[in-house]
Amino acid sequence: MNFLENYQQIIAKAIQKHTFKNKPAELYQPMNYIIGNAGKRLRPIMVLMACDLFNGNTEKAIKPALAIEYFHNFTLIHDDIMDEAPLRRNNPTIHTLHGINVGILSGDALLIKAYQFFEDLEPELFKKCIQIFSQTGAVLCEGQQMDVNFETMENVTYDDYIEMITNKTGVLSAASFKIGALIADASEEEAEHLYNFGKHIGIAFQIMDDYLDVFGDVEQFGKKHAGDIFENKKTILYLLAMEHATEEEKKELNFWYSKKTENVDKVYSVEKIFRRAKVDEKVLRLIHKHNEIGHDYLSKINLPEEKKKPFKELANYLLRRES
Amino acid sequence: MNFLENYQQIIAKAIQKHTFKNKPAELYQPMNYIIGNAGKRLRPIMVLMACDLFNGNTEKAIKPALAIEYFHNFTLIHDDIMDEAPLRRNNPTIHTLHGINVGILSGDALLIKAYQFFEDLEPELFKKCIQIFSQTGAVLCEGQQMDVNFETMENVTYDDYIEMITNKTGVLSAASFKIGALIADASEEEAEHLYNFGKHIGIAFQIMDDYLDVFGDVEQFGKKHAGDIFENKKTILYLLAMEHATEEEKKELNFWYSKKTENVDKVYSVEKIFRRAKVDEKVLRLIHKHNEIGHDYLSKINLPEEKKKPFKELANYLLRRES
Repeated sequence: MNFLENYQQIIAKAIQKHTFKNKPAELYQPMNYIIGNAGKRLRPIMVLMACDLFNGNTEKAIKPALAIEYFHNFTLIHDDIMDEAPLRRNNPTIHTLHGINVGILSGDALLIKAYQFFEDLEPELFKKCIQIFSQTGAVLCEGQQMDVNFETMENVTYDDYIEMITNKTGVLSAASFKIGALIADASEEEAEHLYNFGKHIGIAFQIMDDYLDVFGDVEQFGKKHAGDIFENKKTILYLLAMEHATEEEKKELNFWYSKKTENVDKVYSVEKIFRRAKVDEKVLRLIHKHNEIGHDYLSKINLPEEKKKPFKELANYLLRRES
Repeated sequence: MNFLENYQQIIAKAIQKHTFKNKPAELYQPMNYIIGNAGKRLRPIMVLMACDLFNGNTEKAIKPALAIEYFHNFTLIHDDIMDEAPLRRNNPTIHTLHGINVGILSGDALLIKAYQFFEDLEPELFKKCIQIFSQTGAVLCEGQQMDVNFETMENVTYDDYIEMITNKTGVLSAASFKIGALIADASEEEAEHLYNFGKHIGIAFQIMDDYLDVFGDVEQFGKKHAGDIFENKKTILYLLAMEHATEEEKKELNFWYSKKTENVDKVYSVEKIFRRAKVDEKVLRLIHKHNEIGHDYLSKINLPEEKKKPFKELANYLLRRES
């Protein structure tokens, strides 16, 4: 994934260049902290990749790419407060270090600063990008609220779940690709194809995340095994199990999901039901389906296959199929 | 102030029309709640007034006016969380009713929705307005953080204070006027004059708010007498007193401002120092000064005096000089 590293370097350099030096430092320092605390920065990379796909000027796409990264970090700051998360990427979260008030306010400021990163674009393009950006932001808030609602909802459906992860994850990668495409002057139709590619790859990625929580290799996944089961999270695995398990198994699932316990019997029992209901196979088929839909959209873009190669590699990387 | 009521009706009708019907209701219902829980709605009125001043199309200014109102309410939701305020306009605050998480998220969504209310404008104008809007938002966050910092800062200066209230209050009324003017196709120069009028009237208003807390008629002001003194708030009165009081008085001020007490002796003693240091007169002169600066900018606008009358009336209303 050498091309990813190249892009990562471009983004890292741009973030360095645009470090906030504004005052008061109590507001801007936490913003620099979370942005500097780098994740894989895949979303801004998607902006640059889309721009390159349509032979756009990478330089022009850099600040909009940062806008996406800043926006993403704004959601992380506020989500971490809501989840009472002590750590993010192995570092203390902002509200842990500076309190909830600084977390709220520096998140707000980061969202607004993200909007400002589009201001070098000419008015027509600026408007198009801001419209996508705002729409994406609104949908993300809806997805986050849906996720919160699910915790206490009795009858979450499979469709609800797909809608939630589409809103929470799918639309931001979709929008990143589309904004990059528009900056490169792609047609609305082609930008939309790339949007849909990003959306379905994002959905597949999120479902894979649920899958790996239970069926993944702990070492490779780097998270606690079956954390979602311990947390009683209504993941796609749980929802499919509730759909396909026997009445007796459903009762057992309800029993385990109604209590918080670190008892390993819980994971053992739940996993057994998951396997008996063939949830693992069903989920892999679902991932495959969304991956296929994504690639169908990619194939509609009228460009040489060679140019699309990085997109396929990125999808493989996200869906952990490198090996 | 009949013209204010006319504008209020236009805004109320528009807010009614644009009630959020989106889902999930858990996200959008609190947004409707705070917007429906009407204050005086002066900021959106400023947008319409400015548009009318330059003979613009009021219809075109309505959604941008709502953007300003939504933005203002976004700040209220988040500020109320930070201040742990149980009530806003005599109704329970959102975080009191629905918890901090819904408060954070519905505030975020309201900010993003505010941006979307500019989307009917043509690209050039859209970009101008969004730039002002984002810049104003960033400055407001800075002002809020400064206000938070002041609570624990030992040496807040008079200049710091003016900067803080300019950021927290002045720039939003300024931006409201400017956006209305630009929508009416006013020149950049004239829009800027109106911006400065709004800024200084906003500053004067905020200083008046500090003044009335101590020297106002409780019945008319409608707030607890000397609430700022009980709260140890470093208002302009306190800062001027620290500048002009004797060494002994300063010691006494420091004594009272270092303890939280409902003891009325505190208010009695502090007020005595304020009066001896002639803080009341100094503050009234300061209000007068900013009011004058504001009106100087208004007079630079090349339009008949008759057209500017509502702006003077609004300033008088804000500075409680009707009687």
